[in-house]
Amino acid sequence: MYSSWCLNSLLSLQLSLLSSSQSVPAPSWDIIDSRPLPPWYDQAKFGIFIHWGVFSVPSFGSEWFWYYWQKEKLKPYVEFMEKNYPPGFTYADFAPMFSASFFNATEWAELLSASGAKYVVLTSKHHEGFTLWGSKYSWNWNAVDLGPHCDLVGELAHAVRNRTKLRFGLYHSLFEWFNPDFLEDAANVFTTNKFPTTKSLPELYEIVNKYQPEILWSDGDGGAPDTYWNSTGFLDWLYNHSPVGKTVVTNDRWGYDTICKHGGYYTCTDRYNPGHLLAHKWENCMSIDRKSWGYRRDAKLSDYLSIEELVKTLVETISCGGNLLMNIGPTHDGRILPIFEERLRQMGQWLKVNGEAIYSTKTWRVQNDTITPGVWYTAGVEKGVVYAIFLTWPKLGMLVLGAPHVTAGETKVTLIGYPERLQWEKFGEQGLLVLLPRVNINQLPCQWAWSLKLSEAT
Amino acid sequence: MYSSWCLNSLLSLQLSLLSSSQSVPAPSWDIIDSRPLPPWYDQAKFGIFIHWGVFSVPSFGSEWFWYYWQKEKLKPYVEFMEKNYPPGFTYADFAPMFSASFFNATEWAELLSASGAKYVVLTSKHHEGFTLWGSKYSWNWNAVDLGPHCDLVGELAHAVRNRTKLRFGLYHSLFEWFNPDFLEDAANVFTTNKFPTTKSLPELYEIVNKYQPEILWSDGDGGAPDTYWNSTGFLDWLYNHSPVGKTVVTNDRWGYDTICKHGGYYTCTDRYNPGHLLAHKWENCMSIDRKSWGYRRDAKLSDYLSIEELVKTLVETISCGGNLLMNIGPTHDGRILPIFEERLRQMGQWLKVNGEAIYSTKTWRVQNDTITPGVWYTAGVEKGVVYAIFLTWPKLGMLVLGAPHVTAGETKVTLIGYPERLQWEKFGEQGLLVLLPRVNINQLPCQWAWSLKLSEAT
Amino acid sequence: MYSSWCLNSLLSLQLSLLSSSQSVPAPSWDIIDSRPLPPWYDQAKFGIFIHWGVFSVPSFGSEWFWYYWQKEKLKPYVEFMEKNYPPGFTYADFAPMFSASFFNATEWAELLSASGAKYVVLTSKHHEGFTLWGSKYSWNWNAVDLGPHCDLVGELAHAVRNRTKLRFGLYHSLFEWFNPDFLEDAANVFTTNKFPTTKSLPELYEIVNKYQPEILWSDGDGGAPDTYWNSTGFLDWLYNHSPVGKTVVTNDRWGYDTICKHGGYYTCTDRYNPGHLLAHKWENCMSIDRKSWGYRRDAKLSDYLSIEELVKTLVETISCGGNLLMNIGPTHDGRILPIFEERLRQMGQWLKVNGEAIYSTKTWRVQNDTITPGVWYTAGVEKGVVYAIFLTWPKLGMLVLGAPHVTAGETKVTLIGYPERLQWEKFGEQGLLVLLPRVNINQLPCQWAWSLKLSEAT
Amino acid sequence: MYSSWCLNSLLSLQLSLLSSSQSVPAPSWDIIDSRPLPPWYDQAKFGIFIHWGVFSVPSFGSEWFWYYWQKEKLKPYVEFMEKNYPPGFTYADFAPMFSASFFNATEWAELLSASGAKYVVLTSKHHEGFTLWGSKYSWNWNAVDLGPHCDLVGELAHAVRNRTKLRFGLYHSLFEWFNPDFLEDAANVFTTNKFPTTKSLPELYEIVNKYQPEILWSDGDGGAPDTYWNSTGFLDWLYNHSPVGKTVVTNDRWGYDTICKHGGYYTCTDRYNPGHLLAHKWENCMSIDRKSWGYRRDAKLSDYLSIEELVKTLVETISCGGNLLMNIGPTHDGRILPIFEERLRQMGQWLKVNGEAIYSTKTWRVQNDTITPGVWYTAGVEKGVVYAIFLTWPKLGMLVLGAPHVTAGETKVTLIGYPERLQWEKFGEQGLLVLLPRVNINQLPCQWAWSLKLSEAT
Repeated sequence: MYSSWCLNSLLSLQLSLLSSSQSVPAPSWDIIDSRPLPPWYDQAKFGIFIHWGVFSVPSFGSEWFWYYWQKEKLKPYVEFMEKNYPPGFTYADFAPMFSASFFNATEWAELLSASGAKYVVLTSKHHEGFTLWGSKYSWNWNAVDLGPHCDLVGELAHAVRNRTKLRFGLYHSLFEWFNPDFLEDAANVFTTNKFPTTKSLPELYEIVNKYQPEILWSDGDGGAPDTYWNSTGFLDWLYNHSPVGKTVVTNDRWGYDTICKHGGYYTCTDRYNPGHLLAHKWENCMSIDRKSWGYRRDAKLSDYLSIEELVKTLVETISCGGNLLMNIGPTHDGRILPIFEERLRQMGQWLKVNGEAIYSTKTWRVQNDTITPGVWYTAGVEKGVVYAIFLTWPKLGMLVLGAPHVTAGETKVTLIGYPERLQWEKFGEQGLLVLLPRVNINQLPCQWAWSLKLSEAT
Repeated sequence: MYSSWCLNSLLSLQLSLLSSSQSVPAPSWDIIDSRPLPPWYDQAKFGIFIHWGVFSVPSFGSEWFWYYWQKEKLKPYVEFMEKNYPPGFTYADFAPMFSASFFNATEWAELLSASGAKYVVLTSKHHEGFTLWGSKYSWNWNAVDLGPHCDLVGELAHAVRNRTKLRFGLYHSLFEWFNPDFLEDAANVFTTNKFPTTKSLPELYEIVNKYQPEILWSDGDGGAPDTYWNSTGFLDWLYNHSPVGKTVVTNDRWGYDTICKHGGYYTCTDRYNPGHLLAHKWENCMSIDRKSWGYRRDAKLSDYLSIEELVKTLVETISCGGNLLMNIGPTHDGRILPIFEERLRQMGQWLKVNGEAIYSTKTWRVQNDTITPGVWYTAGVEKGVVYAIFLTWPKLGMLVLGAPHVTAGETKVTLIGYPERLQWEKFGEQGLLVLLPRVNINQLPCQWAWSLKLSEAT
Repeated sequence: MYSSWCLNSLLSLQLSLLSSSQSVPAPSWDIIDSRPLPPWYDQAKFGIFIHWGVFSVPSFGSEWFWYYWQKEKLKPYVEFMEKNYPPGFTYADFAPMFSASFFNATEWAELLSASGAKYVVLTSKHHEGFTLWGSKYSWNWNAVDLGPHCDLVGELAHAVRNRTKLRFGLYHSLFEWFNPDFLEDAANVFTTNKFPTTKSLPELYEIVNKYQPEILWSDGDGGAPDTYWNSTGFLDWLYNHSPVGKTVVTNDRWGYDTICKHGGYYTCTDRYNPGHLLAHKWENCMSIDRKSWGYRRDAKLSDYLSIEELVKTLVETISCGGNLLMNIGPTHDGRILPIFEERLRQMGQWLKVNGEAIYSTKTWRVQNDTITPGVWYTAGVEKGVVYAIFLTWPKLGMLVLGAPHVTAGETKVTLIGYPERLQWEKFGEQGLLVLLPRVNINQLPCQWAWSLKLSEAT
Repeated sequence: MYSSWCLNSLLSLQLSLLSSSQSVPAPSWDIIDSRPLPPWYDQAKFGIFIHWGVFSVPSFGSEWFWYYWQKEKLKPYVEFMEKNYPPGFTYADFAPMFSASFFNATEWAELLSASGAKYVVLTSKHHEGFTLWGSKYSWNWNAVDLGPHCDLVGELAHAVRNRTKLRFGLYHSLFEWFNPDFLEDAANVFTTNKFPTTKSLPELYEIVNKYQPEILWSDGDGGAPDTYWNSTGFLDWLYNHSPVGKTVVTNDRWGYDTICKHGGYYTCTDRYNPGHLLAHKWENCMSIDRKSWGYRRDAKLSDYLSIEELVKTLVETISCGGNLLMNIGPTHDGRILPIFEERLRQMGQWLKVNGEAIYSTKTWRVQNDTITPGVWYTAGVEKGVVYAIFLTWPKLGMLVLGAPHVTAGETKVTLIGYPERLQWEKFGEQGLLVLLPRVNINQLPCQWAWSLKLSEAT
């Protein structure tokens, strides 16, 4: 895309900007925060998160395997190593086994697309520091120098862009658990900043220039403030000078003091799902595996969220103004296991029918119904259109909605995916009672949650 | 169970019997075939097949990996090896990687039980010749001497018997693709019988004495007649002198000329599902993975049969007098992947509701309905009870059954899992029209097929 | 050499002979022992022994690694495994690592030849049971099916025969430590003989027919008598019906009761070096590594015999009527390490000069001198020629020999490798005093032992 | 030695010095070169070089394995990889196999001492960049994070200091073949200096502070000038501020323009052995293996220099004013093979006898004799003492020395290791003829070269 000469020039430029930015005062959060979020993100609603790395080799317990084993010395991890590996085996010894031998970026891209997601976010580098691209700043600890021997980031970026309409995003961990430069800075209470200036910032510039991600999903402040990471300096460049300045979206994890406060959209905590409207755009990142983001071999079926639970989470999240970022964990040899494929395709089936109640919608006046539990609202793009998504089919086939103001003779009610208009009548002061169609299981437009579309409703 | 002294004595005894049986004429098939099948088998209806072995290490393509790669030299197999292993790597080199490190026999047993199955059949030895127990006749090519370092057969037998009510069975391949003794006999057009006398027969005696399987699922005649394998001689011992003589069940794969003709129940071909009644008890052995019995990493979701397809197969099979033996393929490290777990638990859910229409039933006068397609019949234990299992919920909620003779005022019709009696009326000469309840999806007793129970029907 | 059809026929023939030999009385030891040793063997004097096998993979402690570790549970072996391998690792797991990747049979043959040896004996199978050829009777536990993926026996046989004048011999262990068939026979106090009839005897026939070894170096009676092994039956075939009947030489390890008593030449014990004449031809088999026959990585320089010690051993052995079989241990990747190469080449240098005092000689009337210690005698082929090999150069340059009868004016004395005749005079009744030449170190014909040639001596 | 707090402070200090040194002009070579070489080095004469690293894992061809294979794509290396490893295998994948499992620093130290050497130099980091200590600047590419899981530098330093009187030195490669930071600087024609400021210099400070080496053997300028490496700045610190300022010795490889010109002693080229006197102290670094510094499995006996060749090299080198640094290559599992042990011990034997003609000597007026070839001179510590070391014992036992001025009646001549004075007479103008003793091989003080000591000679 860039000739290597150009790339080098660009890099030099950025590095000099970086250096100079140390004398020029970094822009304030006020300025950074004042940039409007590019609209595509709120319209997209649903993305897929992918956690992949050296942790996918032991694939035991959690993607925090290294930390739990070596730092916290948690018993299951210590015992797992004792039982299965020779004494003295280290985490770095796992890297050559990260084969990715079955990895097929085209297949991944098609599956991601089939899920109904509009964007994907890949862990370009997790806290272990292993980069899935051939980073110049992570020599011999990256996916090109050892293990897969392949630019995994580039392969997926290319396939996603060529094969699908999804936007391509990258997760990037600022800190690295065991990087000696980071540990030294930490020991100096972050009064030194060797690690960000030689590792995390150069890498951020590298991935933005090289892969032009439209989401930059920052994580892992390591207990350091944003000033240590020079986050506003970097974001200023990202928003105003980088090749993705117009469309890129970021989150709020740019320092221990910025979460749920500054940056792009808010993520607040993992699996954040507040159940009410927020003033600021946010994202619920969660994982199909209840207990881990990286693939783990010890997961049982009950550890995976069912499709009913996943649809419920999606509906709640969208209704409250969030986006859903749903995570899968590929294996060390590059496969997305059938159980993940099944969940992705089930989501895709549901969204194929109910997409109009999700994509590009706005939050409505009310989020969940005042009378019937398990009913969540979104507002359609067309004026006066309200969607009421109900998670449980009512026993007697009649659904009471307490929140919408409707007008007899004007308001029309349909069940998405069902051709006929539904009968309804007013219920109480402002609500309505909808008579659902008497269809059997084979005729239902979908199996796990259903959407009513109300026109001329307020 | 036996002290080793006893075991040795027994073995010597059998070996001498074996030797002597070569002078004494082997019993005829007439005699063998005249033994009635122990009744538990027909009552059980549903079993789980488990294909596990060294082929689970490459876990690519098929459990016939070795043969396709080395003998048939099929391109995908040859290329897979070239891409992933050093030149000269052999199949035997895989064995130490068969770790079974996550194998938990108790968990397997509980999952098998949750599937609703009444028996399990494990590949004690597939055509590769690798024995999952520490066979004396397969030194350094068995699961105790290398790889798992564990008596996998014994562990599973113990757990199944301690934790569940399932019967424990063993698959055993007579021939071995590359065993030089077998190849020599084959080159001699089976005029010599070194292989059966030193390998397959001693192993059969060994597993029967050691693990007392109640199913002995023979396979792999290798193109040789039953006389080569001395099958009637062995079966005579098995039925009349072995510790499982009273309860053991076998199949029909005891020589190229015996399939669908002699032995215990018939299996005829893999995935045998004739769609009509047979005069002889039979079994449909099939695999959840459409293309392989052993686990293969290259399987996509679409390669696995859906639960709808599995329930359909079960119903068709039982209705026509067969048993269903449904196969799963564990991984080299001893796990039953969530997609298999899901299918097993889904079968268990369905059978929990509909078991009375399956277990211990008899075939009925008619197998599938004469008017409505997708309706299959079984006959209940109680006189006059007929079950009509329908795979599709009729569009208008009314099911026509053309086959049963019913009597107004006497015949009662219920939907299994639904508390109320159903309304029905005569339809034509002998059939009836049943009004199904207007329940919604959440109230259905199950999701994939439903059973009507008719009393006083003929 | 044989078409496979021929081979099969031959094998069948032998197997039938073997069977029939169980009814026909086995030939007595008297008959076997009465066969004269083929003369080439006594003339050859010096051979190289090669211990190579799966034990060369751990290459720790001893070629008895498996036994010491698993059976005797010796601490160093147990700790070595605990320190370097995952729990549960077995001996069989080592086999795929037996790569032989640097093995070059031609180079080996040339080096063997350079050592001055006249024959070589390779461990075709040690007590571990792993055959270095693709034995039909050791399926998946041989060098073709796994590890080297190569017929090591055949490769070396071919190279030795094509490149050198050495005779090719094979070591073969009768018993196998952990072979279940052997253990069963042993538990039956050798009243059963399954192991010899199905394993050791068929293998012996196989290697003799396939590789036509001119030495069959039997070992490992496992505590069983020769009748168990059917040794006389086999030797009868070997001597009278096998393709090497005329030239083959065997040793005496054909049953616990035959050592130093029956068979071909005697070996008695490992490192047998009696220091006096024996009535029967014998062989001193010993190893350059004082403590192991197989290669072990823990050997220090001091564990290897020096060239002085080796030459001394050779001279003592030959003088007393033995042959020397000197052992080396190649590495798992097929190399003969430089320290072994050095010893072999040093021996070759010495023999190049002194060979006439060794090869084809006879024992003399006296073995070691009656006056001067460290002087050993051999008798030349020519009548009246006696060789006196002295290990230490006498301080004052004068060597007293007390044993020979010599005649002034007739007896000539020379130092082999030195052109001039030496001066000598009578010493006492029958001896003589030889004046050695005043040559400096660079002019010495050799550096570690020297040979005087006496003519007309008795 | 330092508490971690102290160490951090020291490092910060040095790093700040380093930074500040970029504003302060670096000291000139004139100043650096004016420091006198600490006298111990010239007295020591003989050291052992040790090349150990990840290249010891493939141990094929050369320690330049990586470069020859991946950069130059030399056929033997490419084929070696194709034959023995799966496609895509990288150099970094070798690192976990660098086990050092037999490494015993105490044994190494004792062997090094037995060689007669007075110092040892270990490759702390070769051009591959893999550090044998747990460098903070080489995360996950060092011997603690993977492979040996052990501070190899520290272990050896400790053992050498505790067990022997040897001085401990470290080799350190400035450049790294494939380090992306170095490659970037190189692409910028060394106008940028990211690599030295973030990698090579911090590492140099780290090893000096941590291990206090008394030799710092720099290598690998990578085509860059000393100004790029800031060599004078570092040497100024090393000589004037480091903990080893008083005793440390360095060489001349501090930039492409400094070799044989600046720094400490000169090394000029590998295997530098000029055969005449130099004005500046120098060192002949050479390897026992003629073709490689790192261990390679493909080396034959003839590839190793004989002890005669090694003694000759030592004598020539010392006589011409150099030191000899003789290299050995340990295996990936931490062993010094017997062939190396033998050479080391042989050198020790020779030096035990002839040490006084080597250690602490000065160069003499003449280096090699004017009449007899193969005679080399050194000057003793005592006034008037001259050593004449002759490599070949003269045929007739008389040695002519053409160079020394001697005086009858004053000059005494002895053969080191022989108790009696030797007879001599004048020969020509100024030389002498020495009558060597008529001793036989067993009485020679040594076997490979002999030293005459002349007193009152000039």
